[in-house]
Amino acid sequence: MNSSMKLEEKIMSKSPSPRSNALRQVPNPVETMRALVYRGPHHRSFEEHPKPMIQAATDAIVKIRQTTICGTDLHIMKGDVPEVQPGRILGHEGVGEIETVGDAVYRFKPGDKVLISCITADGRCDACRRGMYSHCENGGWILGHVIDGTQAEYVRIPFADTSLYAIPEGADEQALAMLSDILPTAYECGVLNGKVKPGDTVAIVGAGPIGLATVLTSQFYSPAEVITIDPDDYRLGVAKRLGATSIINNQNGDAVAKILAMTQGRGVDVAIEAVGVPETFDICQRIVAPGGHIANIGVHGKSAELRLQDLWAKNITITTRLVDTETTPLLLKTVRSGKIQPRSLITHFFSLDEVMKAYDMFTNAQRGHVLKVIMTNKG
Amino acid sequence: MNSSMKLEEKIMSKSPSPRSNALRQVPNPVETMRALVYRGPHHRSFEEHPKPMIQAATDAIVKIRQTTICGTDLHIMKGDVPEVQPGRILGHEGVGEIETVGDAVYRFKPGDKVLISCITADGRCDACRRGMYSHCENGGWILGHVIDGTQAEYVRIPFADTSLYAIPEGADEQALAMLSDILPTAYECGVLNGKVKPGDTVAIVGAGPIGLATVLTSQFYSPAEVITIDPDDYRLGVAKRLGATSIINNQNGDAVAKILAMTQGRGVDVAIEAVGVPETFDICQRIVAPGGHIANIGVHGKSAELRLQDLWAKNITITTRLVDTETTPLLLKTVRSGKIQPRSLITHFFSLDEVMKAYDMFTNAQRGHVLKVIMTNKG
Amino acid sequence: MNSSMKLEEKIMSKSPSPRSNALRQVPNPVETMRALVYRGPHHRSFEEHPKPMIQAATDAIVKIRQTTICGTDLHIMKGDVPEVQPGRILGHEGVGEIETVGDAVYRFKPGDKVLISCITADGRCDACRRGMYSHCENGGWILGHVIDGTQAEYVRIPFADTSLYAIPEGADEQALAMLSDILPTAYECGVLNGKVKPGDTVAIVGAGPIGLATVLTSQFYSPAEVITIDPDDYRLGVAKRLGATSIINNQNGDAVAKILAMTQGRGVDVAIEAVGVPETFDICQRIVAPGGHIANIGVHGKSAELRLQDLWAKNITITTRLVDTETTPLLLKTVRSGKIQPRSLITHFFSLDEVMKAYDMFTNAQRGHVLKVIMTNKG
Amino acid sequence: MNSSMKLEEKIMSKSPSPRSNALRQVPNPVETMRALVYRGPHHRSFEEHPKPMIQAATDAIVKIRQTTICGTDLHIMKGDVPEVQPGRILGHEGVGEIETVGDAVYRFKPGDKVLISCITADGRCDACRRGMYSHCENGGWILGHVIDGTQAEYVRIPFADTSLYAIPEGADEQALAMLSDILPTAYECGVLNGKVKPGDTVAIVGAGPIGLATVLTSQFYSPAEVITIDPDDYRLGVAKRLGATSIINNQNGDAVAKILAMTQGRGVDVAIEAVGVPETFDICQRIVAPGGHIANIGVHGKSAELRLQDLWAKNITITTRLVDTETTPLLLKTVRSGKIQPRSLITHFFSLDEVMKAYDMFTNAQRGHVLKVIMTNKG
Repeated sequence: MNSSMKLEEKIMSKSPSPRSNALRQVPNPVETMRALVYRGPHHRSFEEHPKPMIQAATDAIVKIRQTTICGTDLHIMKGDVPEVQPGRILGHEGVGEIETVGDAVYRFKPGDKVLISCITADGRCDACRRGMYSHCENGGWILGHVIDGTQAEYVRIPFADTSLYAIPEGADEQALAMLSDILPTAYECGVLNGKVKPGDTVAIVGAGPIGLATVLTSQFYSPAEVITIDPDDYRLGVAKRLGATSIINNQNGDAVAKILAMTQGRGVDVAIEAVGVPETFDICQRIVAPGGHIANIGVHGKSAELRLQDLWAKNITITTRLVDTETTPLLLKTVRSGKIQPRSLITHFFSLDEVMKAYDMFTNAQRGHVLKVIMTNKG
Repeated sequence: MNSSMKLEEKIMSKSPSPRSNALRQVPNPVETMRALVYRGPHHRSFEEHPKPMIQAATDAIVKIRQTTICGTDLHIMKGDVPEVQPGRILGHEGVGEIETVGDAVYRFKPGDKVLISCITADGRCDACRRGMYSHCENGGWILGHVIDGTQAEYVRIPFADTSLYAIPEGADEQALAMLSDILPTAYECGVLNGKVKPGDTVAIVGAGPIGLATVLTSQFYSPAEVITIDPDDYRLGVAKRLGATSIINNQNGDAVAKILAMTQGRGVDVAIEAVGVPETFDICQRIVAPGGHIANIGVHGKSAELRLQDLWAKNITITTRLVDTETTPLLLKTVRSGKIQPRSLITHFFSLDEVMKAYDMFTNAQRGHVLKVIMTNKG
Repeated sequence: MNSSMKLEEKIMSKSPSPRSNALRQVPNPVETMRALVYRGPHHRSFEEHPKPMIQAATDAIVKIRQTTICGTDLHIMKGDVPEVQPGRILGHEGVGEIETVGDAVYRFKPGDKVLISCITADGRCDACRRGMYSHCENGGWILGHVIDGTQAEYVRIPFADTSLYAIPEGADEQALAMLSDILPTAYECGVLNGKVKPGDTVAIVGAGPIGLATVLTSQFYSPAEVITIDPDDYRLGVAKRLGATSIINNQNGDAVAKILAMTQGRGVDVAIEAVGVPETFDICQRIVAPGGHIANIGVHGKSAELRLQDLWAKNITITTRLVDTETTPLLLKTVRSGKIQPRSLITHFFSLDEVMKAYDMFTNAQRGHVLKVIMTNKG
Repeated sequence: MNSSMKLEEKIMSKSPSPRSNALRQVPNPVETMRALVYRGPHHRSFEEHPKPMIQAATDAIVKIRQTTICGTDLHIMKGDVPEVQPGRILGHEGVGEIETVGDAVYRFKPGDKVLISCITADGRCDACRRGMYSHCENGGWILGHVIDGTQAEYVRIPFADTSLYAIPEGADEQALAMLSDILPTAYECGVLNGKVKPGDTVAIVGAGPIGLATVLTSQFYSPAEVITIDPDDYRLGVAKRLGATSIINNQNGDAVAKILAMTQGRGVDVAIEAVGVPETFDICQRIVAPGGHIANIGVHGKSAELRLQDLWAKNITITTRLVDTETTPLLLKTVRSGKIQPRSLITHFFSLDEVMKAYDMFTNAQRGHVLKVIMTNKG
């Protein structure tokens, strides 16, 4: 999940509506579970926590089978996402099994295997009708943010029918956990918004997990060239293995010059920003060809300089987007048919009980050649 | 024409290619005409000048009947467009009559009435194939820029078949002169790029001639609201008359607050920048709703601050464009069918002989309530 | 509503799911209402009928304020829609007021004024996610078809959050009743699918209520010409009043020749079929220009001959569609802003008590110059 | 090239315009070349023929290096394309080298290697401006049809700048000859018009050269399934090798039932007709899922039955198209980057001198397991 520091206004009153009170189950005080809990900046614990219950007719309780950690969780741990309150269970990704459903859940029943979307969609507001689930009036990114998340044995999923996706029995659930956030983010914000098409020259700035997921999903459209730029040789090596046609280590800052040379001065058809700092956005605007696209994926904490004096006449399109996960069904089909191997993004495997250690590893991801980690609930 | 200060590299060698030498007519030394000539910053003259001749098989010579002055011509006069050399005849807009054509001109013959596009298109390069005539390898904005222009009795039009448009006998030629630049610019860069659709709330920042042309052409798509923002009450009054549903005088800087109030905090579906300074671009990024579009029309001389910290998660699209005039046939049809009245943008009429006076008036456009001027060649 | 004679397979098991049993209210045997009930081919009665109750958490009960009759209702009365069983309350259009809502209804509360969509959408199936509500796995056209409809004092609306639309207090509710079916049908199946754009030449074959609604909504996009074809001079006169630029009475079968003459042999950009018989479809394929669109709105009971020997090389697009009502929010905005006057389609007004008489009139619509009728529930 | 039996009206006056007389070279009576000449139905000869000369400033003379035979050429030989007159040199595909160019040819010079498009585009008419080169007012499919074609040592190409494409020195010219017609036809009429997208289920009806080229190019978009249907096991085997995920031999007519079974009754997202008879079109309309696309590539000689009674409510799109070759630059990029191997469609190689034998083979293509043949001009 890309984190936002300015989402306060949209997170008001996510607590269940009064009308659902009648449905609330009487809590059983002995039912607890283990969960990774945010305890304020730089403090987390893996602890016993009350097991979630159905609160509204549209809820489902999901038993987690696989979960993972996102770069956003690290931002939260640093205290950069102030709307996350101490006591919150983190995590917005995972695969699990339906435990119970509310009365208005039509598409799932206990025992069904499901992919949990990082985006909760009520399926009924104006934003959801437009497929812009990220801006759902009653949802959006709320898991592990303003309600409890997936780094636990169980999670409550509001609006289950429109926030969970059925997966087949026997599927590679660890691989599918990559479809909670990272793959739709790369595909929607980067590849679709960038309008990658056959024969295109695409540059992906950043080879972290999101950038690498963009390398993978950009190939859905058979671009002629996929150039990947990063300061880390290990990650560039992975990019190459996943299909990048050229890699550029930009530690000495010559990526722009190299790309212009590679393209006879023309620039690239699509430049995808997958980092989230002004410098990488700037690379994009300096390498985009006339008529081209800049697709921003990165989470930005400050403004960037927009070179309108150069760009105004250049017929370019710049897009931003918080992932909507509207393409999750499409992505599931591409995985099932073997067009994409999400497992290639996973480097480290843990049990859920080892989540504290997994966080330690992921916090030092670059040093440890960590991309995505998986934590399996073996309970 | 929106002017560019950074077009030097694309204007190399616009002189006719050697192969066309064989076609060159022997100049008749006595044939001259009157023309408005740039004589360096702040100096212009209306003077006798050699009449243009066919230089390539794809050329046409057009006798000017109506021409006009663009804001870009004022920029040239200030010295802001250095690739315009002293001695250059200015002007990139107009309506005329074909005088002669080269051997490879198929679509026009002497006597035909034509609209001159501000964009010259060779119709054969990669950019032209994509409809991006503005970036034509052998054309683009060259008239009154790197070759002689239309503020004269005659003009040479390269690639006539793809740079001129037939107009019917008896048409309102003064009105049609608005289709050389201002209407396709407003329509393509603003309305089409902004993806205006029925029911939308559109904000147009700037009520100069281009902004007003955007007010007109945005109505092709039946938006629910067309809000126009400008510091000049006269121009806002014109906007209202041309179809704006709300006008906001932003002299006290409260346009953003007013628009957010008008839209219950949601913002607008489409924000169109029609000025070209960082402040007006900033208004656009502060009023655009999630999922909305910012369409830049303005010519920018410096960079703007892009609020990526706010926009990254807002699912917005920002576009830039130099007019391609690819919609000129469409616009001609809308004029012919009375869907739009381009004449409503014209405030002052002169003969071509009065071009010096017309420039004086247009230079003080705001004071004199001048929008577009017409100069008629009565020769 | 366009009726289908082949929808049996998708209408299986629309009865509430077992899980909603717990929510069922105990019926009050004395609560009845008046309703127009289908009693088998050519038999209908206006009779006392049990008032509907909430059956699922996603239901709402709406008190009807305005309703109308659709051509499809006449097909049902003839016995042409066999899945409509005797005893069924007819009607799929109307405006009303929320009486009660189920526990999983978030967007409406008692007292809210609502527009009832002819299409019921569960908002959660694959079809709904794609905006193709007409093919909703649990909805689609079910009102007055396989569940009781709107020609009654009350109606139960399943999936209320995604099948009703809020309308403001004080709105012209009779006009808005045109947005239940006829206007989105014309707009989505005809105008949007036909890709009408500024300057286009559009031909609308059929000037019944749907054809006239197409005349209205095609003007959202400023076509240069809207040609309307029908055998009835009264309806053609209405078409002219509503904005058709040319009308052709095709009683002598020369519409194709006339249109080709009007377009210099080129044909039309968009041909919209709004009748539903092979002959009118054939007109469309004979008048469409290369690169053009044929948008079918009509309900067809038999196949048509497709002139592939002429069309294969003509670069045309033919579309079919059952209205999805996905554009209802857009249409509400165009009505609110005065871009369209749906009231212009209404010719006759009744009280709900006069529904039998309204049916008699509507059955002889052409003779009586009837377009749309309104029945107001004054109870 | 797909042939048309009804193109007479658009082929009027393709002879050079009077204005180009001045450019005509004086013929050299001794210059001849060898060419395959149509001598009336069922008669052809490989004979000495005058070498073509520049007739208009926009012409080029190309020395053929590679050419091929199209199914359309067989139709011509049967007398099915009456506008082809005896004496015509056949062929509309090939790769060659520029010999000479007219004065208005800007993009090519003698010695350049070029791909010849089967579609001639003047680049200046209304159709060409829309990218619909197939309907060019002065071009379209004219080579080997109403002007002399490519099955010869030399060919005159009108409007060379917009009808030829530069290819690099050292390219696989035999492979690139597949880009004259067959690959853009498959890609534009089938894949692009069918809107194939990642995860889709695509059915291709017909595994002749065009169907196989559709198998290849559909994979640009990573569909989950590519089902190919044909009565010939050899061709189905090739389809499988080129990437079809399932093949169906339809000799017993059960393809529809099989596909519905494979898709749980839902049907396919995209059905592509690549044969040109009513039966194969009918398969397409019976297997397309709601919301799906039928893309016709086949050349049809008679009408088909359109099942509007089933399709009217199914939200489907049917497209027809004569190839425009507007995607040739894109296809060249996909070949250069190795995304597609056009050579895989070539089964037999001849010298140009063996063209009579090549025709014999190609006439019995199915029996001889012939797909595409190449004839190399070794002169």
